[in-house]
Amino acid sequence: MNHSNNNTSSSGHWLFTQLLVLLMLCIPSIYVQAKDRFVTTKTEYKQALKLVEPGDKIILKNGTWQDFEVLFMATGTANAPIELTAETKGKVILSGQSNLKLAGEYLQVSGLVFKNGFTPSNEVIAFRKNKNQLANHSRVTEVVIDNYSNLDRQESDYWVSLYGQNNRLDHNHFVGKRNVGVTVAVRLDSKSSQQNHHRIDHNYFGPRPILGSNGGETLRIGTSHYSLTDSFTVVENNYFDRCDGEVEIISVKSGKNRIQNNVFYESRGTLTLRHGNGNIIDSNVFLGNGVEHTGGIRVINRDQTIANNYLEGLTGNRFGSGFTIMNGVPNSSINRYHQVVNANINHNSFINIDHIELAAGSDSERSAVPLDSKLNHNLFISPTAPFTLHDDISGLSFNDNLSNFATKTLSPLMAKGIRSKDITMERAANGLLYPSDENFAAYGASKKLTPTLKQDTGTLWYPKAEPTVAFQSGNTIKVSASDDELASAVERAQPGDILLLSDGKYNISRILAINKTLSFKAANAHQAIISFERPSLFEIQDNGSLQLDGLVITGLNSPDAAGNSVVRTRKWGMLTNYRFEMTNSIVEQLNVNHSFHFFDSGSRAFADSINVSNSQFRHISGDLFRLDKETDDLGIYNTEYLILDNNQFDDIEGAIASVYRGGTDESTFGPHVSVTNNVFTKVGQGKRNKTGASLKLHGVQMSQIEHNKFNDSAAIIVEHTVGEPQTRITHNQFTDTPSPQVTELVAIGKHTADINNNKVQKL
Amino acid sequence: MNHSNNNTSSSGHWLFTQLLVLLMLCIPSIYVQAKDRFVTTKTEYKQALKLVEPGDKIILKNGTWQDFEVLFMATGTANAPIELTAETKGKVILSGQSNLKLAGEYLQVSGLVFKNGFTPSNEVIAFRKNKNQLANHSRVTEVVIDNYSNLDRQESDYWVSLYGQNNRLDHNHFVGKRNVGVTVAVRLDSKSSQQNHHRIDHNYFGPRPILGSNGGETLRIGTSHYSLTDSFTVVENNYFDRCDGEVEIISVKSGKNRIQNNVFYESRGTLTLRHGNGNIIDSNVFLGNGVEHTGGIRVINRDQTIANNYLEGLTGNRFGSGFTIMNGVPNSSINRYHQVVNANINHNSFINIDHIELAAGSDSERSAVPLDSKLNHNLFISPTAPFTLHDDISGLSFNDNLSNFATKTLSPLMAKGIRSKDITMERAANGLLYPSDENFAAYGASKKLTPTLKQDTGTLWYPKAEPTVAFQSGNTIKVSASDDELASAVERAQPGDILLLSDGKYNISRILAINKTLSFKAANAHQAIISFERPSLFEIQDNGSLQLDGLVITGLNSPDAAGNSVVRTRKWGMLTNYRFEMTNSIVEQLNVNHSFHFFDSGSRAFADSINVSNSQFRHISGDLFRLDKETDDLGIYNTEYLILDNNQFDDIEGAIASVYRGGTDESTFGPHVSVTNNVFTKVGQGKRNKTGASLKLHGVQMSQIEHNKFNDSAAIIVEHTVGEPQTRITHNQFTDTPSPQVTELVAIGKHTADINNNKVQKL
Repeated sequence: MNHSNNNTSSSGHWLFTQLLVLLMLCIPSIYVQAKDRFVTTKTEYKQALKLVEPGDKIILKNGTWQDFEVLFMATGTANAPIELTAETKGKVILSGQSNLKLAGEYLQVSGLVFKNGFTPSNEVIAFRKNKNQLANHSRVTEVVIDNYSNLDRQESDYWVSLYGQNNRLDHNHFVGKRNVGVTVAVRLDSKSSQQNHHRIDHNYFGPRPILGSNGGETLRIGTSHYSLTDSFTVVENNYFDRCDGEVEIISVKSGKNRIQNNVFYESRGTLTLRHGNGNIIDSNVFLGNGVEHTGGIRVINRDQTIANNYLEGLTGNRFGSGFTIMNGVPNSSINRYHQVVNANINHNSFINIDHIELAAGSDSERSAVPLDSKLNHNLFISPTAPFTLHDDISGLSFNDNLSNFATKTLSPLMAKGIRSKDITMERAANGLLYPSDENFAAYGASKKLTPTLKQDTGTLWYPKAEPTVAFQSGNTIKVSASDDELASAVERAQPGDILLLSDGKYNISRILAINKTLSFKAANAHQAIISFERPSLFEIQDNGSLQLDGLVITGLNSPDAAGNSVVRTRKWGMLTNYRFEMTNSIVEQLNVNHSFHFFDSGSRAFADSINVSNSQFRHISGDLFRLDKETDDLGIYNTEYLILDNNQFDDIEGAIASVYRGGTDESTFGPHVSVTNNVFTKVGQGKRNKTGASLKLHGVQMSQIEHNKFNDSAAIIVEHTVGEPQTRITHNQFTDTPSPQVTELVAIGKHTADINNNKVQKL
Repeated sequence: MNHSNNNTSSSGHWLFTQLLVLLMLCIPSIYVQAKDRFVTTKTEYKQALKLVEPGDKIILKNGTWQDFEVLFMATGTANAPIELTAETKGKVILSGQSNLKLAGEYLQVSGLVFKNGFTPSNEVIAFRKNKNQLANHSRVTEVVIDNYSNLDRQESDYWVSLYGQNNRLDHNHFVGKRNVGVTVAVRLDSKSSQQNHHRIDHNYFGPRPILGSNGGETLRIGTSHYSLTDSFTVVENNYFDRCDGEVEIISVKSGKNRIQNNVFYESRGTLTLRHGNGNIIDSNVFLGNGVEHTGGIRVINRDQTIANNYLEGLTGNRFGSGFTIMNGVPNSSINRYHQVVNANINHNSFINIDHIELAAGSDSERSAVPLDSKLNHNLFISPTAPFTLHDDISGLSFNDNLSNFATKTLSPLMAKGIRSKDITMERAANGLLYPSDENFAAYGASKKLTPTLKQDTGTLWYPKAEPTVAFQSGNTIKVSASDDELASAVERAQPGDILLLSDGKYNISRILAINKTLSFKAANAHQAIISFERPSLFEIQDNGSLQLDGLVITGLNSPDAAGNSVVRTRKWGMLTNYRFEMTNSIVEQLNVNHSFHFFDSGSRAFADSINVSNSQFRHISGDLFRLDKETDDLGIYNTEYLILDNNQFDDIEGAIASVYRGGTDESTFGPHVSVTNNVFTKVGQGKRNKTGASLKLHGVQMSQIEHNKFNDSAAIIVEHTVGEPQTRITHNQFTDTPSPQVTELVAIGKHTADINNNKVQKL
């Protein structure tokens, strides 16, 4: 019975499943069922791509895909986009010579990580296959590009180029672009890419190190060529974290864009409205924290709106100031400066902004002053008025603004438009400062402004790591002078470690490769004496930074050949910026042959800083700091800061330093050189000293040479090129030493250096 | 019985074996039994080294040993040396950062191969651990060092340094040293290394490419510092195969050495008795085969014997001649030129030697003429007398020599000492030429001379491969203009292949890496049109050589940025020499931005030759050939030959070529530049043309600028430095173009260029 019952039931079940199967077989002919296409090889990917239908997903297997040039060309629909994603977000790594091109409609890419390599083409991610096949209505989200930089820092590429229309780039993580070329570019180079209505939002733009040349912008929208075209790109809720590449963080070069609610954190440079009209800059937050060269907004062109922005602690000056309104060029060509007309600048908070520059750049060419523009309800909080007026600003009407500083030194029109009040500021829950007094609530940025949080940008699954390791942040490793112990300690050390050198004579038979942050410290000052047999003692390589303290370094055992050095970088092609510090050390007898240098930078190597103090250098046949290898005059140079303080230089045949920054662009803040409180004796008089100088500075942007004594030495030679270089040579004593020679190589007329309070004498 | 017998026998056997065991146990205390110590790891090697006794062998397991710095320090005896060898000769590869140091007595190393890497120290093989611990009575035999060159061609090291005394270096195979530094050096830098009686024999010195700077000698014995010390090194039965490194193949810089029975095959340069007295050069064979710059023997210093050598087909001139006797410097310092005194030059055959230079180098400093020297029983066979007399040669007595040319044009003393005869030469079984007439058997080299055979040098187990692949020696691959087909064909091609381009427009989206010998040929001339999107179309990399034929190359699709190029080498640090050839091609529209060059050499890249003919270049914003990257003035340069013939240059903003060879040494034959039959129109007048010239040559050794037409162009600028440069500018037509400017930067007085038969006109 049971059995029979069962049988009947079973039979009914059988019929039901048969029907179900039939039904399922029919479905494909009724409508397309979205498919997940899991692929494990490049070939499988290509096959899958041929088969995809709207709504499908191609899923890349977890793991590292080497040299994978992904062409994602397909046509989805608004309701059924086609997706390319990772088996697990963050676990699909594209490395080597990989890239991604999207072409078609309604595509979406997510979850990929580009690292350990660089693109073989012009972009890592391009929203096009070629000039004719673009992507529209497509989205790239939760994709990471991490240090995926061409190994040659002067070989250009973009990480993302947006072409087409109605595309979105959101929640991506971009960090460590080290080669030339903007991080993200919106291209308007054909009709199909104009009026594009792209949206770029919630991206984490992680630290971009100083590039040391033009081409280090983080985001550029348009180019001068298409700058009178409207783009309609929205850039919102992004976090720009120390985007230091060059003088422009965002370069707007088209019209009708909206840049809103982004945070710019300790980023050197400015948001620049370089070309194009009718852009809206709204509710952005700039936090400089007093970091050098942090800037805000620079206004050029017509019909720009700057409203409800919050700017605090920005130190930048000139075109890199916290706020700048430029002069234009009358009848400007498309790639020069269009006049500012009808700017509406209201409800912005300018708090502890070192410089606000109006009619900036005024000169014989840039003579068109700002017109018909309004500044209303802005809040200016500073110890003193931050304004510099470079020309007639009667075209800027100030109405009902508020400040905490006295305005009587300002022009009458400005004084009238800025009320001066005693204002107490309080930090609100959103982290921003506001007047305590509610009566002032109508001035400056709104209390409702909600700064975009770092953690709300990028992806949840990819860490936002710190870019550098501090000196002496690791362990101390004791080293004695016995056979090869130092060399093997260098290999084993971890980033941040300190090698503590016991007293003794160290003779080093190989070049010590510095490929992490390392400190070498004498246990007792001047009791660890190092000689070396190879052409260099230290070679700073990628990821390396070097600190020396209390050492004696001698060239006595160095090869009898020209061109040795104590420290060099890789001779060519370093990608990461490095730091070099030395204090309380002695360097001597670098004279076994000619041209024995102390520090020799390679070409395409770039120091964030070189800082040497309280040290003695004597009997050296070459130069001390050779930072002059970028002779192609493309705006490239070898160090951002060179700081020499309180050193003694005796019997140096070459120059103490040769710093070279050629080119005619004005895209860099550096190089900066500071030489203070040093004593020079018999410096720079060797016949092989190519510079002919004790100190040679070419194209350096900021030079400070003060409180030094020069005895029986060659002259200081300074060559000014572009960028309004600031040179101060004061309170030095020149004994049996020619006076400094400063020449202007570009500007016409007398040089602009400040040379004062020096003493020149002959004994 | 049997059993009993057996038992007895067994008992006796037992006793015998017991005794044997006892005896064996005793042996170690009687004398040491040589042991083979097979090691499989670096740690095992170190342990084995601690245990070795005279007569022992350490045997390295077959395979690749990465980064193995072998210290072979032990003390063997004359009868029981200690050996380090391979499980199978040739199967133990030392790669990466490996090297070998011998220290102690009676050591022998054999069977190892160094390749795929370079030494981290000053030498690959050093006969010492450090200054105090040397090797004596030791031998390195059947060891291979193959292309084990520092990746930076200007980073110096030696492959072998002999220190100590009584060492032997034999049957080794050395090929492809590409970085600066002599291949094998005998060091005399301490008492313990002088009067050393080393023997260097039966080695195969395989091709050493042109270095393009000083420091490319194959063998050096001593240095100037110890040159008045005797070395007693014997160099015999070696084969020098195309050792082209620099002007000296062997540089003798010490006394009492014997160089005998070696063969110099098509090697550019000479065996030079640079310093030191009493050396014997005997029974060597120099075979030039008419190759440019092949030389013979250069005599300097006292008491040198040059006997029974055979020299044939040597083309070299000046100090690189087939035979040279130098003038000295009176009271010369140790590093200049000591006078030739008491040279004995007899029984040498000089056959088809282009130049024999006597009292060479005579100038105001080198004024001490050769003295008390004899030339006897030598044989001179040439179409005409090859002698050039640079000063008084009365100190050279010619007695009973024989020639086939008329001697009446010679000085009376020479004419008297050289009998002129009609001589028929025949090639003997030993491959050398001798007079057919037995009556002349007493002249020139002996018939018994047995040239060392290539196959009798080096090892039996390592092939003597050819160093380069000829253009078009491979297969033809047809390519069409469709997507990426060319790029993928380049990747797949084999060395020597020809890519045959069908008619069509090729747009290349990545840089084509040329890392093998490749030819690109249009199927129909000028019907394959190539544009490119990256900063360069071709990048020549290590092992690459490039040939182009019949192409059209346009810059229309190139990036809108400064500094593009059509061809570049790696931007820095190429190790292998390359060749570039182009014919019958058109290059145009390189002007999307400024400084768009055609061919851009990197620094530390070196071309054996660049040869361009029958091509048109037009509308170019940069330079055509940038071969000026070695600006450190250390004698380095970027090409050995630049040959431009029958091309048209129209509207070129930069220079056609900029070639730079700085420095004051005279160690290189090149660079050579030949510019003939070209038409220049509007060349070199761009404001960014740094050279200011249509053609700029600095330090070029041989220049030939002939039969060109210059229209409305910048001047030719030539700067002579050292090395008696030869410049000929003749039969050119300069229309609306300044006359050539030649200056001497080192020599005093009027320039030495031959500028004649040119036509200068203004229209």
